[in-house]
Amino acid sequence: MRFDAVTTPVSVRPADLDSVGHVNNARVLEYLEQARWSWLRHHGLDRRKRIIPVVARIEVDYRRELFWGDLSIRTALADEDTVYKAVFEQVIYSGAVPAVTAKVHVAFIDTEDRRIRAVADFIDANAQSAA
Amino acid sequence: MRFDAVTTPVSVRPADLDSVGHVNNARVLEYLEQARWSWLRHHGLDRRKRIIPVVARIEVDYRRELFWGDLSIRTALADEDTVYKAVFEQVIYSGAVPAVTAKVHVAFIDTEDRRIRAVADFIDANAQSAA
Amino acid sequence: MRFDAVTTPVSVRPADLDSVGHVNNARVLEYLEQARWSWLRHHGLDRRKRIIPVVARIEVDYRRELFWGDLSIRTALADEDTVYKAVFEQVIYSGAVPAVTAKVHVAFIDTEDRRIRAVADFIDANAQSAA
Amino acid sequence: MRFDAVTTPVSVRPADLDSVGHVNNARVLEYLEQARWSWLRHHGLDRRKRIIPVVARIEVDYRRELFWGDLSIRTALADEDTVYKAVFEQVIYSGAVPAVTAKVHVAFIDTEDRRIRAVADFIDANAQSAA
Repeated sequence: MRFDAVTTPVSVRPADLDSVGHVNNARVLEYLEQARWSWLRHHGLDRRKRIIPVVARIEVDYRRELFWGDLSIRTALADEDTVYKAVFEQVIYSGAVPAVTAKVHVAFIDTEDRRIRAVADFIDANAQSAA
Repeated sequence: MRFDAVTTPVSVRPADLDSVGHVNNARVLEYLEQARWSWLRHHGLDRRKRIIPVVARIEVDYRRELFWGDLSIRTALADEDTVYKAVFEQVIYSGAVPAVTAKVHVAFIDTEDRRIRAVADFIDANAQSAA
Repeated sequence: MRFDAVTTPVSVRPADLDSVGHVNNARVLEYLEQARWSWLRHHGLDRRKRIIPVVARIEVDYRRELFWGDLSIRTALADEDTVYKAVFEQVIYSGAVPAVTAKVHVAFIDTEDRRIRAVADFIDANAQSAA
Repeated sequence: MRFDAVTTPVSVRPADLDSVGHVNNARVLEYLEQARWSWLRHHGLDRRKRIIPVVARIEVDYRRELFWGDLSIRTALADEDTVYKAVFEQVIYSGAVPAVTAKVHVAFIDTEDRRIRAVADFIDANAQSAA
């Protein structure tokens, strides 16, 4: 299976703004999650089968303040050869300006036996073409 | 079954504050929900059985601004004789001052057949003393 | 000044979903607020001048569950003749289905002397055509 | 000035839970922020003077799922000798178990000239004993 970079629009809500009028640092992670779900849907990967994706680690750099308005997020798999986790590289753009960059490590858990599963297991089990 | 008024402490988080430094109006509903879950737990009512509580209507009056700090919430059943919904009266206090008052109408849904159930059904099915 | 009904698109984020997979009742108020800000912008009304709008009361009816996806919100002034508050009627649509209806009472505060001001004062002071 | 490790209690709210019943990854950052504000207050450092703290980078490891209930967070300055940023090490405990660990890099901005300021400048300007 080949994976694309996917661009997702996101709107800043008033409730995302903090007491100095910028987007709160926690809310930025909601945008990144929205974009990863779009990435999964783009690739026909269902989040709600027996094996589920779980965020294990996030590294996020806040480079510019974000304000009320529309943003876009580019989400791509990192070029890392890992068996048990997927690493996403995500960039939030305000206009053409990269305002936030992040690296998100996702593991895959079997909801029945609670064990870690390989990325390939997730893809096999959750691709919507699968029965 | 007799029901008590229950008082629940809640802490305002920085992320709850809006761009003028007051608690955002949507976040206030998170506090009220926290207090209703505490009310259920106080009475030994499990939220995760076959019949689940669902918010049907909220009326909320924002009387004073709320700031970063500690609040407390009083939650009681309203003195209304209803078969198919529970009506909660909730007051958020900042110190001794009532800052928000709300009336929350909760219905009960059977997760298997999607039908509305009576309050009494919920209590019978979800009381933790029940098998 | 004549006022239009304004329709605003809103995207449900994964973080808006509760533990049974529906949009949380508090998050719904974030959508309504997003739509009111769009209504103000549509009419050239600035939120950040000396007189600011403050939510005084919300009545919200949750008629259907909301899921991850795109919604739209219709926001209009209610046909009520009030001097000191604006009353908004808002409907959240999931496709063509009205899923949430709300009535939102907004008051106007002078940030310098902390006094309540009339709707007309807000419009005079905050219209962007004003100097 | 010497700095202490500060422990802050945090309550998980129902609205923090995601569609599988665990605390959402973005919400965890709200807890960390709550604990950093408590750390600042413990040390008499005001957030609202001319120089404000701004989150520049977060690294967060999600080691265990978090559920509805009470948590505690330990916040300490990392033993790194930096002039222009403060690095916080934070651990979220569920009971005695470290469930989340994070490293948070905070820069200091002068709100008047928009320039980066040294940690020492922030401490001088914002200590509440200062005039």
